[in-house]
Amino acid sequence: MLDSLKKAVFDANIELVRRGVVIYTWGNVSGIDESRENIVIKPSGVSYDDMKWEDMVVVSLSTGQVVDGLLNPSSDTPTHLEIYRAFPEIKGIAHTHSINAVSFAQAGMDIKALGTTHADYFYGDIPCARALTEEEVNGEYEVSTGKVIVEEIQKRGYEPLSIPGILVKNHGPFSWGDSPASAVFNGVVMEVVAEMAQKTLALNSGANLDKYVLDKHYNRKHGKNAYYGQKK
Amino acid sequence: MLDSLKKAVFDANIELVRRGVVIYTWGNVSGIDESRENIVIKPSGVSYDDMKWEDMVVVSLSTGQVVDGLLNPSSDTPTHLEIYRAFPEIKGIAHTHSINAVSFAQAGMDIKALGTTHADYFYGDIPCARALTEEEVNGEYEVSTGKVIVEEIQKRGYEPLSIPGILVKNHGPFSWGDSPASAVFNGVVMEVVAEMAQKTLALNSGANLDKYVLDKHYNRKHGKNAYYGQKK
Amino acid sequence: MLDSLKKAVFDANIELVRRGVVIYTWGNVSGIDESRENIVIKPSGVSYDDMKWEDMVVVSLSTGQVVDGLLNPSSDTPTHLEIYRAFPEIKGIAHTHSINAVSFAQAGMDIKALGTTHADYFYGDIPCARALTEEEVNGEYEVSTGKVIVEEIQKRGYEPLSIPGILVKNHGPFSWGDSPASAVFNGVVMEVVAEMAQKTLALNSGANLDKYVLDKHYNRKHGKNAYYGQKK
Amino acid sequence: MLDSLKKAVFDANIELVRRGVVIYTWGNVSGIDESRENIVIKPSGVSYDDMKWEDMVVVSLSTGQVVDGLLNPSSDTPTHLEIYRAFPEIKGIAHTHSINAVSFAQAGMDIKALGTTHADYFYGDIPCARALTEEEVNGEYEVSTGKVIVEEIQKRGYEPLSIPGILVKNHGPFSWGDSPASAVFNGVVMEVVAEMAQKTLALNSGANLDKYVLDKHYNRKHGKNAYYGQKK
Repeated sequence: MLDSLKKAVFDANIELVRRGVVIYTWGNVSGIDESRENIVIKPSGVSYDDMKWEDMVVVSLSTGQVVDGLLNPSSDTPTHLEIYRAFPEIKGIAHTHSINAVSFAQAGMDIKALGTTHADYFYGDIPCARALTEEEVNGEYEVSTGKVIVEEIQKRGYEPLSIPGILVKNHGPFSWGDSPASAVFNGVVMEVVAEMAQKTLALNSGANLDKYVLDKHYNRKHGKNAYYGQKK
Repeated sequence: MLDSLKKAVFDANIELVRRGVVIYTWGNVSGIDESRENIVIKPSGVSYDDMKWEDMVVVSLSTGQVVDGLLNPSSDTPTHLEIYRAFPEIKGIAHTHSINAVSFAQAGMDIKALGTTHADYFYGDIPCARALTEEEVNGEYEVSTGKVIVEEIQKRGYEPLSIPGILVKNHGPFSWGDSPASAVFNGVVMEVVAEMAQKTLALNSGANLDKYVLDKHYNRKHGKNAYYGQKK
Repeated sequence: MLDSLKKAVFDANIELVRRGVVIYTWGNVSGIDESRENIVIKPSGVSYDDMKWEDMVVVSLSTGQVVDGLLNPSSDTPTHLEIYRAFPEIKGIAHTHSINAVSFAQAGMDIKALGTTHADYFYGDIPCARALTEEEVNGEYEVSTGKVIVEEIQKRGYEPLSIPGILVKNHGPFSWGDSPASAVFNGVVMEVVAEMAQKTLALNSGANLDKYVLDKHYNRKHGKNAYYGQKK
Repeated sequence: MLDSLKKAVFDANIELVRRGVVIYTWGNVSGIDESRENIVIKPSGVSYDDMKWEDMVVVSLSTGQVVDGLLNPSSDTPTHLEIYRAFPEIKGIAHTHSINAVSFAQAGMDIKALGTTHADYFYGDIPCARALTEEEVNGEYEVSTGKVIVEEIQKRGYEPLSIPGILVKNHGPFSWGDSPASAVFNGVVMEVVAEMAQKTLALNSGANLDKYVLDKHYNRKHGKNAYYGQKK
């Protein structure tokens, strides 16, 4: 079932390796079907070299149970499910261990919007969510991770597709989009802007970006007045 | 029309990817025809993997209108046009999002001349232009970006081919040369010297370069007394 | 003799190059046979390009003498032997000169556990062992290096497979595992978490990780309650 | 003439590109014939992609005149000649623009010996030579560069093959060895230890290496009591 979504999710997972944002079995990408009944996600702990598109696992959005597939789904599956449940506009989610984004997560710092590369894709600072409490970690850890992500987005008043990524403190980046491929795209961009931010702050710890430049660049690429790219 | 310039501009765009100074659809290169009537530029938002040389867009230097081509030209086209209009010696322009150069732009700092790698190609500090005002950003943004670049070069009293690049604050590098290929070459060199400068300043924040070394190295490679390379 | 172990040790050595944690003739990997009578190790000073699996050297665990092979074993062989003698659960050892891990060793600092990438594979800070004394260096240097590693692990009360790596001060990383391949895997992970830690500390010198997150992540992948990956 | 030396010098030049320590036409490698009458060096300003072994240029050690070859020799040829004249044990010289070594040169700092990777190949700090005076730069610049290198080695009391490299202030690294290939090898090692030193100092600005470890590691690989590698 859902073969074409399985192929899209598989391709998006492989792209994580190609773009250098994961190694070994790290990271995972998922996608959701049009009806938002089921998600398709990478199996847990399988090497990217050995993985086939048929290995992708189908999980019910409502129950979290495996509906199709022989392998265990990613251990981060409950985190993905929480995000999909909260935000119907999200159709793909990626989780990486990319070095610069993880460094901000480990430092417990937002990736501040410092330039137009960031503003082109993220309409504001990329948040670092609060740390999970001991109770959350020892309870349903991956569910709580998802809830903390949702809580942070809502607390900031962000539209999730306008700032399509977040850092989980001490953990790393999650990104999303309107497809599995765009979730990966946003994860790669997050890594690049994290590297730029790290280097910018080393040169000038007081660097910042004027709000009107953020507005201009984001709206140049997104929304009804966008004029970047080709007519669709 | 202008097929051989289209091919040169296409090749120069592809070289951006090969040298690692752009990913996805980022960056753009243009060239101008001998008569300086039209420029040829990368289409907007097209992936480098999918692009063909026939996709390059011809734009009139005087009117800014598309003269040949089925696709929208780069959204940065008005910036390129301003630079070409101000400096007739410039025959190619490149814009990248290379990480170290962008970091200086985001920090709002010149890339100071600190060594001979820099002096071999840039005869002085690579300027970071002033920030655009809110009015400039909300008006004809890309035109104003070009005007601010031209203003900064003139304010510093620079000859554009002697310091063939600049940083737009919070945005990133533009570079140029006597051909599309040399514009890219100078953009790649700018990225390398930006990385060297970042690391030099981390070791010694007071590093600098004596003017007589700058003179020597620049003139070893450029001008009538140059003695680097082969007789042409 | 021990042809299949020779092949496994050879493959693990080649993997060092493929993962970018050594160049030239640097680094070495060994493995031990099931009976723990002999180890197999890379020959000394042989380039990875020229090496064949048949060149691996068999050395007696008890005597340290070459039992099979035409080439000299790695000059670090006595270090490997000390580690194997102290910890029967270790079945493979790797030594690299990976840049970020070496930097922590040269700085004389532990690689602190700062995030879940670290916690997934190393159940605590990766120790930097004490410097060798002048007497130790001028005596049986490589034996003393092994003894200092063993001493540090025991002093910290670490189980070696739970924190499968260490830094030798001013030298670099040693890692290990239940096979030559897993020793290399842990060496590559150590390099990645060292790079993350370097960048994290540059952003926030006071970064740290709550013990309960360390516990959760380590135990998610290891031990009887692990739930990451597939049923074996 | 000197075809086999030309091939060795050509291969060593190409190795600069393969190891990532130069781009475009940057850097150069030379070698000297057994009789020390002539050196063979890369032509000036020729791209590595276009270069053939037959393009290598033969220059007289005593007169500095081209003896064989159709192209201009590297503009750094007089620097190479000064080094060969001062130190008969040197048989190959390499000059790169590798980023980390250049950063130390631009910072005007020695690459301090901080660990065993350094000590394995460089028996002490890699010196940053003094800046050239205005008179030296405006006179025979490349000759003076060579003289300053020779002066620094002699002032420190260094044996050139024991510390086979140096930084020219604000310029970059020169390295050497008993062949063109070993000159490149030492240039690559210098870049790696420069990167390690940069990162070590960022973690701990007071890092250092005990003299007895430096002695041990250097002598483990070099001199009559060396025991690393295979019998020759």
